[in-house]
Amino acid sequence: MATDTAPPTDPAIESAPETGAAEQLERPGGRHGLPQAEVDVAALRAVLDGRYAEVRDLVRHNLVEYSSILDEAETLDRDAYRGRVKEVLVEMAATGQTGMGFPESYGGGGDVGASFAAFETLAFGDLSVLVKTGVQFGLFGGAILHLGTERHHERYLEDLITGKLLGCFAMTETGHGSNVQALGTVATYDAEAREFVITTTEPDANKDYIGNAAAHGELAVVFANLEVAGERHGVHAFVVPIRVEGEPAPGVRIEDDGLKIGLNGVDNGKLWFDGVRVPREALLNRFADVSEDGTYSSDIENPNRRFFTMLGTLVQGRVCVGGAGINASKVAIAIAVRYALKRRQFEATSPDQEDLLLDYGQHQRRLFPLLAQTYALHFAQEVVAQQCHEVFSGERTDEKFRRELESRAAGTKALGTWHATRTIQESREACGGAGYIAENRFAALKADTDVFTTFEGDNTVLLQLVAKGLLTDYSSEFEEMDQLGMVRFVTGLAVETVVEKTNVHKLLERVRDLLPGGEQWDQEAGILDTDYQLAMLRFREEHMLAGVARRLKRGIDQGMNPGQVFSRVQDHVIHAARAHVERLVVEAFADKVASLEDGSTKAALGLLLDLHALSVIEADRAWWMEHGRLTTARSKEISRAINSLCRRVRPVARELVDAFGVPEEMLRARDLVG
Amino acid sequence: MATDTAPPTDPAIESAPETGAAEQLERPGGRHGLPQAEVDVAALRAVLDGRYAEVRDLVRHNLVEYSSILDEAETLDRDAYRGRVKEVLVEMAATGQTGMGFPESYGGGGDVGASFAAFETLAFGDLSVLVKTGVQFGLFGGAILHLGTERHHERYLEDLITGKLLGCFAMTETGHGSNVQALGTVATYDAEAREFVITTTEPDANKDYIGNAAAHGELAVVFANLEVAGERHGVHAFVVPIRVEGEPAPGVRIEDDGLKIGLNGVDNGKLWFDGVRVPREALLNRFADVSEDGTYSSDIENPNRRFFTMLGTLVQGRVCVGGAGINASKVAIAIAVRYALKRRQFEATSPDQEDLLLDYGQHQRRLFPLLAQTYALHFAQEVVAQQCHEVFSGERTDEKFRRELESRAAGTKALGTWHATRTIQESREACGGAGYIAENRFAALKADTDVFTTFEGDNTVLLQLVAKGLLTDYSSEFEEMDQLGMVRFVTGLAVETVVEKTNVHKLLERVRDLLPGGEQWDQEAGILDTDYQLAMLRFREEHMLAGVARRLKRGIDQGMNPGQVFSRVQDHVIHAARAHVERLVVEAFADKVASLEDGSTKAALGLLLDLHALSVIEADRAWWMEHGRLTTARSKEISRAINSLCRRVRPVARELVDAFGVPEEMLRARDLVG
Repeated sequence: MATDTAPPTDPAIESAPETGAAEQLERPGGRHGLPQAEVDVAALRAVLDGRYAEVRDLVRHNLVEYSSILDEAETLDRDAYRGRVKEVLVEMAATGQTGMGFPESYGGGGDVGASFAAFETLAFGDLSVLVKTGVQFGLFGGAILHLGTERHHERYLEDLITGKLLGCFAMTETGHGSNVQALGTVATYDAEAREFVITTTEPDANKDYIGNAAAHGELAVVFANLEVAGERHGVHAFVVPIRVEGEPAPGVRIEDDGLKIGLNGVDNGKLWFDGVRVPREALLNRFADVSEDGTYSSDIENPNRRFFTMLGTLVQGRVCVGGAGINASKVAIAIAVRYALKRRQFEATSPDQEDLLLDYGQHQRRLFPLLAQTYALHFAQEVVAQQCHEVFSGERTDEKFRRELESRAAGTKALGTWHATRTIQESREACGGAGYIAENRFAALKADTDVFTTFEGDNTVLLQLVAKGLLTDYSSEFEEMDQLGMVRFVTGLAVETVVEKTNVHKLLERVRDLLPGGEQWDQEAGILDTDYQLAMLRFREEHMLAGVARRLKRGIDQGMNPGQVFSRVQDHVIHAARAHVERLVVEAFADKVASLEDGSTKAALGLLLDLHALSVIEADRAWWMEHGRLTTARSKEISRAINSLCRRVRPVARELVDAFGVPEEMLRARDLVG
Repeated sequence: MATDTAPPTDPAIESAPETGAAEQLERPGGRHGLPQAEVDVAALRAVLDGRYAEVRDLVRHNLVEYSSILDEAETLDRDAYRGRVKEVLVEMAATGQTGMGFPESYGGGGDVGASFAAFETLAFGDLSVLVKTGVQFGLFGGAILHLGTERHHERYLEDLITGKLLGCFAMTETGHGSNVQALGTVATYDAEAREFVITTTEPDANKDYIGNAAAHGELAVVFANLEVAGERHGVHAFVVPIRVEGEPAPGVRIEDDGLKIGLNGVDNGKLWFDGVRVPREALLNRFADVSEDGTYSSDIENPNRRFFTMLGTLVQGRVCVGGAGINASKVAIAIAVRYALKRRQFEATSPDQEDLLLDYGQHQRRLFPLLAQTYALHFAQEVVAQQCHEVFSGERTDEKFRRELESRAAGTKALGTWHATRTIQESREACGGAGYIAENRFAALKADTDVFTTFEGDNTVLLQLVAKGLLTDYSSEFEEMDQLGMVRFVTGLAVETVVEKTNVHKLLERVRDLLPGGEQWDQEAGILDTDYQLAMLRFREEHMLAGVARRLKRGIDQGMNPGQVFSRVQDHVIHAARAHVERLVVEAFADKVASLEDGSTKAALGLLLDLHALSVIEADRAWWMEHGRLTTARSKEISRAINSLCRRVRPVARELVDAFGVPEEMLRARDLVG
C-alpha cells in the first residue's frame, strides 16, 4: 500500500449505491485535494498553541527538565514519590508556571487564560504533578482568591503561590459527593468566643478523597453548613488549619485514603473535625459574613443562589480538568500513530514485506476519528478557556454569559474526559502487547486519568447540569434549583416556553434560512458541507430538548412523582445534553477553520473537521433516521465518506500528531514509537 | 421510587407513538410478570454453575483460603509478590484445582471441561495467580501434552502438574505477535551431533512478554522455524532449558519485561538464544519429526495446514481467557450494583431522603444491559467450553466441528474480553470516587484485565479469523490460508458459493419458515419474541457476509492489489464477524432459557435474554434501518422496551448479581457494597 501518495480512485468497492461524496474525496484536487506532503508542522502547531504559545513552551521546557519524574513514579515507594511530586511542584512554581492566574500584586501572573494553557500542557507529563498542582493552585488557591477577601489574600496568597504553604480543598464527604448541599460537616458560630466550631456531625460526613490532606497540607478550605444562633444558612467555606508542624491539628483526625487506581503521587486523605475552633475571620466572606455579635449577612438573599454563586468558582477547576483530559489524549494518540507507522504485521499487500499497521483500513478507523475528535475538543476547550478568562478577569460581567460558561465548562469537561478514557484505551489496544508494558506511558495514562470522569463533577451529573441550563434557558431561577426544583420548573410554567423555543417548525424555518434548499435540504446538501453538518447537529439538539420537556410535562400532568418522572426521562435528558455539547464542539472547530487563511494548514484542519463532524453524525445516525432527517442511502454515504477521509488522513498522520508538540521525553519507550 | 414492587403502569411518558410492547412489559402478570421477590438465588446459581458446580465450589473455597493475596498484591514489592503468586499456584495445584485437564495417569483430573470451569472461576480473585496458572498449566503444560508425545509426557507431565517444574510458552517475539509464521527464531538440525541449534536470528526476533521467563521458569517450549539440511519446514516447538539452578542456561539471555500496566505478579520476560543446543528428542514431535540422519517427516503434508494444526492447540487458551474476562466482569458488576443499592444521591423523589443510585433510570441503563450481557456471555462460554471438551477428550473428531470450535472460541474470547474492559470501566465510574480507591478491586480489575483483549490473540485479528471461517465456510483449505490467501480464495472460485450461501432471498425464505408472518414479518412479530430477535441477528450476519464477499470480488475484478482490497473492506469484515458472534451469544442464551422448566428462574433469565437481545439490536439499529429491516417506529419501540425491561430488572438486581457466587472476600471494601 502506498504510504505517501494519495490512494487511487476506487469508488467501486464501496457498497452500492455509490454517490458523489466519497468519489469527490478520493479525487486529488477535489475539495480535500490538499497538498499533503506539505503540511507544515510548525504552522499547525502555532494554530494549536494559539495566543499562549510562550506559556505552553515554558511548560514543555519544564516537563523535559523534570522528565525523571516519569521514572520515579515507578521506582520510588509511595511516600518518596509523593515527596518528589511536591518538590517538582514547588520548583515549577518558582518558574512562574503555576501562579499565572493569580494577581500580580501577590506574585502571580495576572492572566487567567495563561493559567489554563499552562495547566493543560502540564497534562503531557506525570499526572500526579498535574493533579497536585490543580489541588494547590486551582482548588485551594482558587477558593482563597475567589471566596475570600483581602484579609485572606494578604495572609495566604503569596505563600501559596510559591508553594511554601500547601492547602486542601475539603468539600467532598464520604457520604456526599455530587450533592454538596447535603454536606454533614457543620460550622456553628460561638458569638461569645467569636469563633466557628467545625464538627463532623454524622457517620460518612468526614471529608474524603481530599488532595494534600494525607501528608502535605497545612490548611484546608472546609465546606460546612453554617449555623448561627440555631439557624442554618447553607454551605460556606472556612480556612481551617489541619496540620501543625507535620502533626494533625487538635481536634482534626486525618486518615490516608491509601492506594488508588492511579495518581499515587497525590496524598489524598479523609478529615474528621471534632469541635475544631477557628476565629470568625476564617470564614471566606466574599459572598456572606457573620458579624462579631452573630448577625448573618449576605448580598445574595436566596440561599440556593448564594450556594451556586460560591460553587461557580468551581468552573475553573472544570475547565482545567477538561483541558487535561484532552491533552492526555494527545499523548496516547501520538504514541499509537507513531507505533503504527513503525510496526509491520502480516504480508497483506505483497508476499515479501509485512504491511504497516497504519495502512490497514480498520486501524485507520480505530485511530483517525479519535485523532480528529482530539483536534475538535482542543479548539472547543480554547473557546471555554477564553470565556472563562473573560469572566474571571472581569471583561464579561453579565450573569447569563457566566451561566452559559458554567454549562459549557461542565459539558466540555464531560466530553473531554470521556474522550480521554476512550482514546487511551483504544491507543493501548492498538499497540498490542507492547502497549501493556509500563514504560510506554499507557499504564500511567490509563490509571491516572481514570478519575477525571468523576472528580470536579461526575460526568453524568454534569450533563444533567447542562440539560438544566438548556431547559430553563439559563433563566435567573437556574441557580436556585435542585433536581426536584428543575423538574417542577420545567413541568410548570416554563414548559410551554421551552417547547416553543425548541419548536421543530421554527427550527426548520431557521434551517431553511441557513440552507436554502427547500424542504429537501437534508437530502440535497453536500455531506461535506459544514453548514449541513451543523444544521443536523442543531436539529437533533433542539428536537431532543423539546421531547424531554414534553415528556416531563406529560408525567407531571398525570400526577406522577416528579422524581420518578425524572428518573424515567433521565437517559433522554443526558442524551439531549450530550447532543448540545457535541454541537458546541463541532461549532468551535468550524469557527477555527473558518478563521484561517487558505493554505495547507486550513486544508488539513478542514479534513479533520469533516472527519469529526461526520463521525459524530455516524455514531448517532440511527437517531436522525428515526426522526426522518437522514435517508438510509445518505447514512451509508456518510460511513463511506468516513472511510475515504481516513485514507486522506493517512499520509499526514505523523505530521498531525507531531503538531501537538508533545515533548519526545513524554512519549518514553522511544524505540517503540520510532 | 418503589424498590421492591413492580413500577406502576406508565406508558404515557414514553415517547409517542406508543405501541404494545412497553405496556405489556409494565403490566404485572404479562409475559414478564415474574414473581420477582421469589427469585431463588441458589436455584439461579445452580443453573449458572452447571455440571461443574463442585469444581467451581472448590475454586471458591481456595480463593477464600488465599484471599490475603489481594492485599499482598498491594503491599509486597514486585519480587515478593511474584514469589507469593508462585507459592499460591503450587499450593492450589496440590488441591487438584489446576491439573483437571491432564490425564489421570500423570496425576491430572482427566476432564478438560472441568479445567475450564476451574480456570474461569479463578478469575474472581487475583488475576496474576490466574494468568500464571494459565501460563503454566494451559500454555506450557498444554504444549507438552498436545504437541509432545509419550517421551515428553513421561518426562515432564507429573512434575509440571504439581508445579514442581515451571515452564514458559515462548512463541511471541518482539517483532512478531499475531503473525506467528514470520517468527525469526530458527532451529537448525545438526545431524552429526543429533541436536537442534536454536538461534535468535534477527533484531526484534527475541521472545517477548513470556510468562515465567523473568524469574521462575526452568524450561521453555520455544517456537522456531525449523531448518533441516538447508530446507525450511515452518514453525515447530522445542523444549529448551532456559534456567539451571536459578541462572540462565548457557547461550540463553533473559531480560525482565519490567513493570506492566497490571499482572505484576507474573514474571514476564524476553529471551534470546545464541546457538543453544538441545537433543533431537527436544522437538515436540506429535505432528512432525526429524530422524537421526536428518530426514523430516510429517503426516500433514501441507506446511500451512501443519502450522495451523499445531496452533489449534491454542484454542484452549482462548477459551480460558474468554471465560476469565466474563468472570472478571461479574466481580465488577456485582460491586457496582451493590454500591448503587447502598449509595444515595440527591433528593429526587422526596425532599426528605436522597434516592438510591439504582433507582435512577440512567443508572439502570448503564448497568443492567451489561449485567444481561454478562449472563449471555456466561452461557455462550458454557457452549464453547463444552465443545472444546468434546474435541479434546476425543468425543468429536470431525475436522469441521473442530474448525467451527476454533472460530467460536476466537469470537467468544474477543467479545468476552472487550466486555470485561467495558464493564469494569462503567462499573468503576458508576461507583464514583469510591471506585477509584484501590481497596475495592477496580484498580486490579482494570489493570490486570487490560491485556486480555490482546493476549492469546489480538481481538481484531481474532475477529478476522472468524470472518475467514465464515467466508470460506470452514472449507478444508481454511487452515492453509494466510490473509492474502484468504482474499484470493474468497475472491476466486469460492465467491459465488459464498454469495449463494448467504443469498438474501434464501435467507428470507428461511425467515418466513421461521416466522410465518408473511412479507411483513419484521413489522408484525413481537419484539419480545426470541424468534424475531434471532431472525434479525441472522439477517444482519448473512447480509453483511454476502456484502463482504461481493466487495472483495469487485475489488479483485478491477485489478486492485488484494491487500489493498482487504484493507478497504476490513471494517466491514470485522463488523460481519462481530455480527456472527453476537448471534451465537444470543442463541446460546436462548437455548439455555428454552431448556429450563417454567418457574421464577426461567422467568428471570427470560427477562435478561430480552434485555440483552434488544440491547444488541439497539446498538446497531442504524444498520437494520439502513437495510430496510427496521422501521423507525419499531426502532423507537425497542429503545422504550429496554427502559421498561431495566425497570423490571431493578427489584431483582441484587439477586441477579448474588447468583454469580462471587465470594464476599473477593469484593473487598465490604462497607462500600453493603
